[in-house]
Amino acid sequence: MSTSAYARLEDRFRRLSAVQGALAVLHWDSAAVMPAGGAETRGEQIATLTVIAHDMLTAPEMADLMDMAAADELEPWQAANLAEARRQWRHATAIGPDLVEAIARQSHETELAWRTARAANDFASLAPRLQALLDLVRQVATTKADIFGLSPYDALLDEYEPGGRSATIDVLFAELGDFLPELRGRVIERQAALPPALALDGPFAVEDQRRLADRILDVLQFDRNHGRLDVSHHPFTGGVPDDVRITTRYATSDFTRSLMGVVHETGHAQYERGLPVAWRGQPVGNARGMTLHESQSLLFEMQACRTPEFIRFLAPLIRETFGRDGEAFGEANLRRVYHRVSPGLIRVDADEVCYPSHVILRYRLERAMIADELRVADLPGAWAEGMQSLLGITPPDDADGCMQDIHWPGGSFGYFPTYTLGAMAAAQLFAAATAADDAILPGIAEGDFKPLLAWLRPNVHEKGSSRTTDDILTEATGLPLGTAAFRRHLERRYLD
Amino acid sequence: MSTSAYARLEDRFRRLSAVQGALAVLHWDSAAVMPAGGAETRGEQIATLTVIAHDMLTAPEMADLMDMAAADELEPWQAANLAEARRQWRHATAIGPDLVEAIARQSHETELAWRTARAANDFASLAPRLQALLDLVRQVATTKADIFGLSPYDALLDEYEPGGRSATIDVLFAELGDFLPELRGRVIERQAALPPALALDGPFAVEDQRRLADRILDVLQFDRNHGRLDVSHHPFTGGVPDDVRITTRYATSDFTRSLMGVVHETGHAQYERGLPVAWRGQPVGNARGMTLHESQSLLFEMQACRTPEFIRFLAPLIRETFGRDGEAFGEANLRRVYHRVSPGLIRVDADEVCYPSHVILRYRLERAMIADELRVADLPGAWAEGMQSLLGITPPDDADGCMQDIHWPGGSFGYFPTYTLGAMAAAQLFAAATAADDAILPGIAEGDFKPLLAWLRPNVHEKGSSRTTDDILTEATGLPLGTAAFRRHLERRYLD
Repeated sequence: MSTSAYARLEDRFRRLSAVQGALAVLHWDSAAVMPAGGAETRGEQIATLTVIAHDMLTAPEMADLMDMAAADELEPWQAANLAEARRQWRHATAIGPDLVEAIARQSHETELAWRTARAANDFASLAPRLQALLDLVRQVATTKADIFGLSPYDALLDEYEPGGRSATIDVLFAELGDFLPELRGRVIERQAALPPALALDGPFAVEDQRRLADRILDVLQFDRNHGRLDVSHHPFTGGVPDDVRITTRYATSDFTRSLMGVVHETGHAQYERGLPVAWRGQPVGNARGMTLHESQSLLFEMQACRTPEFIRFLAPLIRETFGRDGEAFGEANLRRVYHRVSPGLIRVDADEVCYPSHVILRYRLERAMIADELRVADLPGAWAEGMQSLLGITPPDDADGCMQDIHWPGGSFGYFPTYTLGAMAAAQLFAAATAADDAILPGIAEGDFKPLLAWLRPNVHEKGSSRTTDDILTEATGLPLGTAAFRRHLERRYLD
Repeated sequence: MSTSAYARLEDRFRRLSAVQGALAVLHWDSAAVMPAGGAETRGEQIATLTVIAHDMLTAPEMADLMDMAAADELEPWQAANLAEARRQWRHATAIGPDLVEAIARQSHETELAWRTARAANDFASLAPRLQALLDLVRQVATTKADIFGLSPYDALLDEYEPGGRSATIDVLFAELGDFLPELRGRVIERQAALPPALALDGPFAVEDQRRLADRILDVLQFDRNHGRLDVSHHPFTGGVPDDVRITTRYATSDFTRSLMGVVHETGHAQYERGLPVAWRGQPVGNARGMTLHESQSLLFEMQACRTPEFIRFLAPLIRETFGRDGEAFGEANLRRVYHRVSPGLIRVDADEVCYPSHVILRYRLERAMIADELRVADLPGAWAEGMQSLLGITPPDDADGCMQDIHWPGGSFGYFPTYTLGAMAAAQLFAAATAADDAILPGIAEGDFKPLLAWLRPNVHEKGSSRTTDDILTEATGLPLGTAAFRRHLERRYLD
C-alpha cells in the first residue's frame, strides 16, 4: 500500500469519529425528542455502535500502525494528532472487554437504583450497588495506574482532564481553601448590610422564555446554521462541531436559571464550534479536556454574562420580553439576584463563591474512596462532616447530601475537580482577554460578543488538543492554571 | 462454541438491525431537524455506518454460518427468518464493492444534477449523467440476473418487492389497461354533469393544521409513545417499529394535501408499528415489501379515509378547526373535493383513477431502459407519446414530464410498479376487512379505527416477512393480488 501509515491512521480515526458523531446524534435524540417507547431499541443502537467504536479503536493492527506512523515525517499538528490517537488508544486498550462490560452493566444498574433511592431518601438501598460499582472502578483505576505509571486516582482523572494530576489540584485547592472561607464570610456580611434581592415573581410563559433565549443566542453569536436549541430534562451540549445541539429546560416560576443555563451551554457550544476546522474528525481536533470545556461555559455564564455591563444590557430585554416593570426587574435588583451569595446544600444551585467548596468536598471523598480509605457505607457521615467544615451547614438527609449528584452512581470518579478548575481557567482567560482587547467589555455592554469570540477562537478554541491545558493557558494568559485571577475576580465582583 | 449457528446468525442480524436503526434516526434527523450546516458531517456519518452495515452483512463467515444454520432444527418462523437473511445477503454480496461505490457516487451526483435541471427545465444537462447512472444500474441488473436466474428488470424489482415478477405485473397492468380508460371516461363525463367542487379558500394557519393533524393521529390510533409527527420538505415515514417517525409539510393555501398526507404516512407507520414484536431486529420481522407497505398507506388514505363515512366524520372537524362554514366546507363539497377525477401531468398530484396510468407509463419506460431498448436521450419523446396514449395529455416541458420524479435520478429502477400494486392490494384488503367485520365501516364513520386495526394486525402487519406478498394476501382475502377489488372499488366510489 502506497499510502503512509499516518494517512491510514487518520482514515481510521475519521471513520471512528463518524461513528462517535452518530452516537452523539442518538444521545441527543434520546434526550430531546425520542418518545419514551423508543428507549429499548435506542439502547440496542447505542450499545451496538459503542462496541463498534471500541472495536475500531482497539483493532489488533492499531498498535503497529501507530508505531509505523511515528516513523513517518510528521508536521507538528500531525505529531500532536498521533499523540492524541495514542492516548485514546491507551485508555481503550488498558481495560479488558469483560471489565468494560461489567462496569457498563453495574453503572447502568446503580444509576437506576440511585434515581429511586434519591427520591425515597434511602441511602441504604443504594449503598451496596454503589460499593460494587466503586470496586469495579477501583479495578480500572489500579489497572490503568500500573500501565500509565500514575496513581489510581490520576489514571481516572486523565480520562476527563488529559494530563491532569492530583498533586497540582491539591496545591490549587489548598490555595482556594486559604482564602475562600474568609472571602465568603466578608461577602455574606456585606450583602447582609445591603437591601436584599427582591423576588422575581412569575409566572413567566415558556413561549416568552423561548423568545428571550433565541434573542440571547443571537447576541452570543450562536450559529443556527450549525446548531440548535431544544428542551431536555437535563440541559447539555451535544452533537458535533458543525452541528452543535444545546438544550435547556423552562420553569414558569423562574426564568433566570434557564436563561443562564442557555448562556452556559452556548459557551460549551462555541468551544465545539470553534475547534480547528482542518482537524475535524481527528483526535487533535477535539476539545482539550473538561477543564477548558467548563472554562468556556463559565466564561460565558459567570464571567461575561454576569458582568454589570451585560446585566445592564440584559435588564431591558427581560422587562420587554415578559412585559414586566418595577423595581424587581430593574438593573440593580437583577444584579443583586445574579450576584447573591449564600451557602446551600445543592452544588448545582450554588453561587460561584460557594461552588468550589462543593467540589473540594467531592474531590476529597472520591480520592478517599478510590484509595479504599473510605467505604461507601461511611459516605453519609463523611459528607455531613465535610459540609459542616467547608460550608458550615449540615444536610438534613442523604437525598440532598451525598446522593444529590449523578456522577458516582454513573461511574464517574475523577470528574468533579474539572468544574472548579474550569471556573479558575475562565477567570484567568477572561482577565487576559479583556486586558488584551479593550473593545471586549464595551462590546459585551452593547450585546456585541464578536470581540470576545475573536479573542477566544485563536487563543483557545482553534488549538483543539494540539497542546496541554496548561500550555494553552500559558500561551493565552502568560501563566499556567492558577487561583490568582479567580480570587481577583471574586474580590472585584463581590467586595469592591 | 455451544450456541447454535442459527442463534449466532440471529445475533449478527440483531446488531445489523441496530446499525440500520441508527441510520434511520440519522436520516430522519437530516430531513426533520438538522441545521443545513451539519450536512457534510452527517454525510460522513451515514456513509460510514452504511459501509459498516454492508460489511456486517457480507462478512466472509456469513455464507458458512447460514449453511450451518440451515442444518439446525428450525421452527417455521426461524426457517423463514433464515430465508430472509439469505435473501438480503444474496442481494448484498451479488455486487462488488467497486460497483456499489460507483452507483452511490453516480446516483448522488445525478440526483443533485436533477434538482438543478428540473428547476431549469434543462433535460440536456441531466441526460448524460442519467445515462451514466443507467449504465451502472444495468450492470447491477445483469449481474444479479445471472446470479438469481431472473431477468435484469426482475432482479431490480426483487429489491423493492421480494418475489415480484414482471410477468405477473404485465398481466395485472394489462387488465387495468383494459378497463381503466373507459372507466375514467365515464367518471369524467359523470362529474362534468354534476356541480363542480367549490374551492376551499385559505389561508389555513399552520398551527390549526397541526392541531387537526394531531386530532387525526389520535383517531387513527397513532401511538405517540412509539412515534412522532414532524415537518420535512418531502413527507416520509422513518424510524423503527418502536419509534416510528412520520413527517408532513404544511401549506397555508391548502390543508387537504397535508391532511391526507398525514393519513397516508400513518398507514405506513401502523404497518411498521404492527410488525411482529417477537421478531424485532430480525429479517423476518421486517415489512414484507413495498407493495404491502404502499397498500397500508393507501388503505388508510384512499380506502378508509375517503369513504363517505369518514368524510362525514371529518367535515365538522375541519369546520371547527379552521372556524369556517358555508357550502364549500360542507360534507358534500368535501366529498367532491376528495373524489375529483381529472387527468393531469404530475403523478404525485394524481387522483386514484388516473394514478395507475402514470405508473404504467414509468413501468414501460424503465423496463425499456433496463433492456437497453430506450436510451435516456430518447426519454422525452417516449414520455410525451406515452402520456398522450395513456392519459390523453402532452406535457408542455420536461420539468413536468420525464423529470418530475426523483426515482430514476436517485438510481431507483423497479420501484414504480409497487405504487399501483399497493393500490390494488389496498382495495382487496379493505374489501376483505369490511366483509369480515361489519363493525369496521360503522367504526370509521365514528372515527373509531380500532376494529380496522384489529383486522389488519393479524392479517397483515404481524406476518412480517414470514411469507410472500401473495401468500399474505391469499390468507387475508382468499385470493392473490388481482385487479377485481380495485375495479369494484373505483366503480362503486365514482360511478354508483
